[in-house]
Amino acid sequence: MPERVFGHIPGYPVGSWFESRASLAAAGLHRPLVAGISGTEAEGADSIVLSGGYEDDEDCGDEIVYTGHGGRDQDTGKQVAHQKLNHGNLALAKSKLKGLPVRVIRGSAHKADDSPSTGYRYDGLYQVEDYWQERGRAGYYIWRYRLVKIFENEVFTFSKVTEDVASYSIPCRKETTILRIVRDTKQAQRIKELYDYCCQVCCVRLEGTAGPYAEAAHIRPLGIPHNGSDSIDNLLCLCPNHHVLFDYGAFSVANDLSLLGIEGVLTVIAQHQISVGNLHYHREHYFLKQGEL
Amino acid sequence: MPERVFGHIPGYPVGSWFESRASLAAAGLHRPLVAGISGTEAEGADSIVLSGGYEDDEDCGDEIVYTGHGGRDQDTGKQVAHQKLNHGNLALAKSKLKGLPVRVIRGSAHKADDSPSTGYRYDGLYQVEDYWQERGRAGYYIWRYRLVKIFENEVFTFSKVTEDVASYSIPCRKETTILRIVRDTKQAQRIKELYDYCCQVCCVRLEGTAGPYAEAAHIRPLGIPHNGSDSIDNLLCLCPNHHVLFDYGAFSVANDLSLLGIEGVLTVIAQHQISVGNLHYHREHYFLKQGEL
Repeated sequence: MPERVFGHIPGYPVGSWFESRASLAAAGLHRPLVAGISGTEAEGADSIVLSGGYEDDEDCGDEIVYTGHGGRDQDTGKQVAHQKLNHGNLALAKSKLKGLPVRVIRGSAHKADDSPSTGYRYDGLYQVEDYWQERGRAGYYIWRYRLVKIFENEVFTFSKVTEDVASYSIPCRKETTILRIVRDTKQAQRIKELYDYCCQVCCVRLEGTAGPYAEAAHIRPLGIPHNGSDSIDNLLCLCPNHHVLFDYGAFSVANDLSLLGIEGVLTVIAQHQISVGNLHYHREHYFLKQGEL
Repeated sequence: MPERVFGHIPGYPVGSWFESRASLAAAGLHRPLVAGISGTEAEGADSIVLSGGYEDDEDCGDEIVYTGHGGRDQDTGKQVAHQKLNHGNLALAKSKLKGLPVRVIRGSAHKADDSPSTGYRYDGLYQVEDYWQERGRAGYYIWRYRLVKIFENEVFTFSKVTEDVASYSIPCRKETTILRIVRDTKQAQRIKELYDYCCQVCCVRLEGTAGPYAEAAHIRPLGIPHNGSDSIDNLLCLCPNHHVLFDYGAFSVANDLSLLGIEGVLTVIAQHQISVGNLHYHREHYFLKQGEL
């Protein structure tokens, strides 16, 4: 079995069309013949196929909310149990953790305006921007992934090529850059100033040559499908380490502001009213349900 | 004086042309009549004008290496002293720290293929991706800034608008996303695995629901103009906090691996040969020279 390739497959540009899952697999675009997610828990996921299997998938073209696998009745296709963060689901989460690009293939059975009328089409590289748990339409916990298209103008030019960069199958003299999005609005500035750039979890204040540095973390994420607001009741001032841990669900916050998953209590000043609904949303979607791993 | 606007100025799309610095100022695109950098040390910089003033400027269109101000002889325009990280220079560094978009205006006197033949042209929003110190052509320390164009397809759509987002002068239902670039190549994966995701400075290992998280930090940065290599001798495995502090020059590493700026010694295992030349490059460009602030 050749090494798993993360990135484009040489010879198959974006838009390449395939008659069947077998021809997709033969080209190396998506190796498994049935599974929607290609990859392993240790390496991460290299490709997914959107083929209408899950009622909870959402597809806006450059932005996809993809549903993990498992928990479905084999005969009816209905969700009859919770999904677990293992196998392909964990592989796709790992791709976020490792910042790996994921090939996206759309099949004709996929319900989206832009699906091919027959067969399968390679639609380019996406990054896994986020993953979380939620109750699907059938009432069971499902794993969901937000994938965002990587545009070619987000590819930087290099003056030096290493073999390893080339082995990622990105055109020569280029390297994929994986983008971590840090939003900075007036509200983000305001929350940092309220706490004087000190982390609300560990009280650390990072000092650079141009001044202090902190990050504004949204409790209920912005954007589709969470639609959290960019307001002070949905923001925390965190150091980068606690921002990562919060976004990855390593800890959450109870309504009484005690921390869940780690020791301690969130530091909150009087001027900062945190929405209890937003805290609930974070716990429900990002903090792993007991026994669901 | 109206509030400083970070972002587009309504009524003046990218490509708008102005006859003079006075008309640029009247439109609010770039308020100072002489200075190349508009902004304050506390708020950050909202715009710059490229007008051929500095021999060390470099312009590749979507990517600019801009030189700070100060240290020039008023009569000859030659660099006769070191530049300091204050006034406009600190404002521009602050824009990186705060993730603020900077309006870029090119003037006819600016030496680049794409400069307007007369007057000034608004060329859109850029982010300050990096700043550092180096010896300019005249032998004095100058401050340099790498600015990268923000493309409109890096703008996310929102379902909820707050007044504050609107006051950033981004079209309705949209918000600028400031992108922190985290590169992830095979070498980046390798350095993290070598250290089992433990920070080489503080030994922290962040644990998320899908596994451990660490960042690969390039000692000598990739890309123009540093051209560091994506190889193991140019990488460190750091937690996000120490990655930020390293990139912002809050600490550096001596050739004997002792830390500069903070207490301690870098943890380095036998299989990891760090290039002394790359450590020297980081100290020289990112670690503030004594007495130069």
